[in-house]
Amino acid sequence: MLSTITRYSAKLNILMMAGSRMKLELSKVVQGRCRLGQLKEIGRMGQHSLDIPGCLLYTHLGSVPHLTQDTLHTLSSLPTATQVTLSNIAEHQEVLDEFKGGFKTFAGLHDTVLYCSLHDSAAHSPTGHTTNKTVSVWGSGGRTELTVAKFMALQRTVQPDWYQAMADGETWQTGTSRKRVRKSVDRSLAHLDECLMVHQKSQELDGVSVFGVVEGGDILEERLRSARETAKRPVAGFCLDGFQTGAMDQALRSQLIAAVTEELPEDKPRLLQGVGRPDEVLACVEAGVDLFEGFFPFQATERGCALCFRFDVTPDPESAGRARLTVADEERHAAGETQPNGDLNCDDQTHMTRFEMDLKDKRHQDDFRPLVEGCGCYCCRNHQRAYVHHLLVTNELLAGVLLMIHNTSHYHSFFRAVRDALANDKMDLLRRRVLGTVKE
Amino acid sequence: MLSTITRYSAKLNILMMAGSRMKLELSKVVQGRCRLGQLKEIGRMGQHSLDIPGCLLYTHLGSVPHLTQDTLHTLSSLPTATQVTLSNIAEHQEVLDEFKGGFKTFAGLHDTVLYCSLHDSAAHSPTGHTTNKTVSVWGSGGRTELTVAKFMALQRTVQPDWYQAMADGETWQTGTSRKRVRKSVDRSLAHLDECLMVHQKSQELDGVSVFGVVEGGDILEERLRSARETAKRPVAGFCLDGFQTGAMDQALRSQLIAAVTEELPEDKPRLLQGVGRPDEVLACVEAGVDLFEGFFPFQATERGCALCFRFDVTPDPESAGRARLTVADEERHAAGETQPNGDLNCDDQTHMTRFEMDLKDKRHQDDFRPLVEGCGCYCCRNHQRAYVHHLLVTNELLAGVLLMIHNTSHYHSFFRAVRDALANDKMDLLRRRVLGTVKE
Repeated sequence: MLSTITRYSAKLNILMMAGSRMKLELSKVVQGRCRLGQLKEIGRMGQHSLDIPGCLLYTHLGSVPHLTQDTLHTLSSLPTATQVTLSNIAEHQEVLDEFKGGFKTFAGLHDTVLYCSLHDSAAHSPTGHTTNKTVSVWGSGGRTELTVAKFMALQRTVQPDWYQAMADGETWQTGTSRKRVRKSVDRSLAHLDECLMVHQKSQELDGVSVFGVVEGGDILEERLRSARETAKRPVAGFCLDGFQTGAMDQALRSQLIAAVTEELPEDKPRLLQGVGRPDEVLACVEAGVDLFEGFFPFQATERGCALCFRFDVTPDPESAGRARLTVADEERHAAGETQPNGDLNCDDQTHMTRFEMDLKDKRHQDDFRPLVEGCGCYCCRNHQRAYVHHLLVTNELLAGVLLMIHNTSHYHSFFRAVRDALANDKMDLLRRRVLGTVKE
Repeated sequence: MLSTITRYSAKLNILMMAGSRMKLELSKVVQGRCRLGQLKEIGRMGQHSLDIPGCLLYTHLGSVPHLTQDTLHTLSSLPTATQVTLSNIAEHQEVLDEFKGGFKTFAGLHDTVLYCSLHDSAAHSPTGHTTNKTVSVWGSGGRTELTVAKFMALQRTVQPDWYQAMADGETWQTGTSRKRVRKSVDRSLAHLDECLMVHQKSQELDGVSVFGVVEGGDILEERLRSARETAKRPVAGFCLDGFQTGAMDQALRSQLIAAVTEELPEDKPRLLQGVGRPDEVLACVEAGVDLFEGFFPFQATERGCALCFRFDVTPDPESAGRARLTVADEERHAAGETQPNGDLNCDDQTHMTRFEMDLKDKRHQDDFRPLVEGCGCYCCRNHQRAYVHHLLVTNELLAGVLLMIHNTSHYHSFFRAVRDALANDKMDLLRRRVLGTVKE
């Protein structure tokens, strides 16, 4: 079966190059792996660029939870690419078809690159519904089973600038058999080839980029095979699937990602799915990842927490001013010590991490400081922890809005700090700052 | 007992005049009752004014549910006065005391008049907890029992510009005995005198206005006694309590309010509690009410509805443009016909009214029009009904934000239309437009 796929895709390669318009320009590669640069000519019109290492804007149905576009655009460091997931959209296909204008217009999005992924990394999808020919996605109305034909019909309706090919990603649970992992790699390659075939014939998808999905669970051999075979296809970049927080520890993740990225062409971007914790982001950047999904600030908001980890590494007072964070260390220590999952190898992404403070905690009830001193976001400029605490304990609807503003701003500023640290050879300092082992 | 109260308050009258700084300037009085004008020199510094008939801005803990101050201030027609209620605030007294800066600063409110009421008209308070010396308020943490001493300590902590005196308002249920109603009037007068006594001695409350509360249930004689006696006190204005939607029908409400307002001095404002439906607002304005609470748009938002009633009465194309509404009549008729409480004498304020459309309804799933055509709010400028419908059915958090923007904007524009109609002798046309009996 594999040899058929390979021949088939070699033919496609020639036909398809026009479709993958994205260009990656690397300005620096540290230790042979860790990349700084810019993804250029993204978007169907080729009018956008995206700095890497970078993070996509996380949305539900095109909206950042709680925030209007107006509110969103008061934040600095916002990414140019917005992520939507088919799990949210699939059940609305009929209406979108009738609307005709594509999802971007339907959701009132302007001037952004739209990236469409299969699943929502912040939501739990039940397993056991994948077949040889289909994958299933779960929305609020339940399960939608997707064949490649239906998947591609959805892409024609959504009209994204860029999408993830259909893939069988059900092998992230530890203890998945080698046979199941191999099947997942084979199926994902077959789905990719089918997607590319339909893509090529669809005028509506002209200029739209496709990312192939690298699977392989925790089996190095299958990871390498998946990477090599996917790299032979005419894709614009790669999604690294099955590495999500909870699936494996960071040491194994780093090792597998480093091995996988060595098999991938240097001139195409790698997007890691399901990893959002700042410490894991840093380790994965060092293993060769370029892009991340932005669900982490949303998860912190959902649990009533404010991101408060430090990422200031520049001693220059002027540029430091933009991102100077002076959260008392005892804050994070308190969080780390009182939470069972405060350590670095947290297995459950729904629990509080050491990178945030729990504003529902009673100790914030008379704390009249901003969430993060020196933070320039709307919430920190206008409100104190005590007020947000009171909004949270009385279930006021503004609490989520304010936390989402702060957390989104904080997280995307962190990604800017990662790029700055890479540019200035300060990744070690940044890592220590994020982990809280440097105090000054 | 009454004669004691009267003598007591006569003495207070002289002492207190400085405290009630508000000035009411009437520019027009229609049919001897229905008033157009401006409330001037409100706020402790006397720097604000409020047009009447007018509506206060409804908040929870100082925030309009779902909206940041930034988002809020993108709306036009916003009132200059913000309402908070002790039921939300009472349980946070300790923290506010420690904060010292007053509630306005605590909640990040700027440049607004803060009015503090006893109960939240959009929330149901359990009855049966009132005693001779106390009233109870319910917050998220349960019941707080207030004596006058505690009530006034709270006012010193909150530091409003204007507050409602403590009152026994537990007589709104039909069938309340005459004896209980009489007791409520007596207690409310006694509470008022005690409040004024403490107020006078509190330097912190210098320049703060107090509204006395008119009680009396559905008994005309008690209503008149309550109005007359309250009017003898040195209050800045009057709260009309116990008339809320569900307590009585509009004919009786209009009759009682008209009788009560005849007993009240013409130069002081009357604030009606618990009435928000547009048809009832119009009837109450005609009965002599100046001010309303703004909870109605929040209730519509909570039930996933968008206000869509018309209030355009001016044929002048230029000024009509600001508020031109062309909601198809069938929309409202559908709402009115399919909802058991769509009629005018709706008894339960949690049910949908004929003045709104249910955006969760499937018929909106492919409706690509704005919520209200011609509406200039952020939601209507950027999104269609179909998108808001999809946000609602998938429980997206942005749905409440968008609906609250539209509903707040629509409702406060309605109050501007009421003032315009009064100024231009078009109240009849406005009433017919609001009720949907004029179609053009």
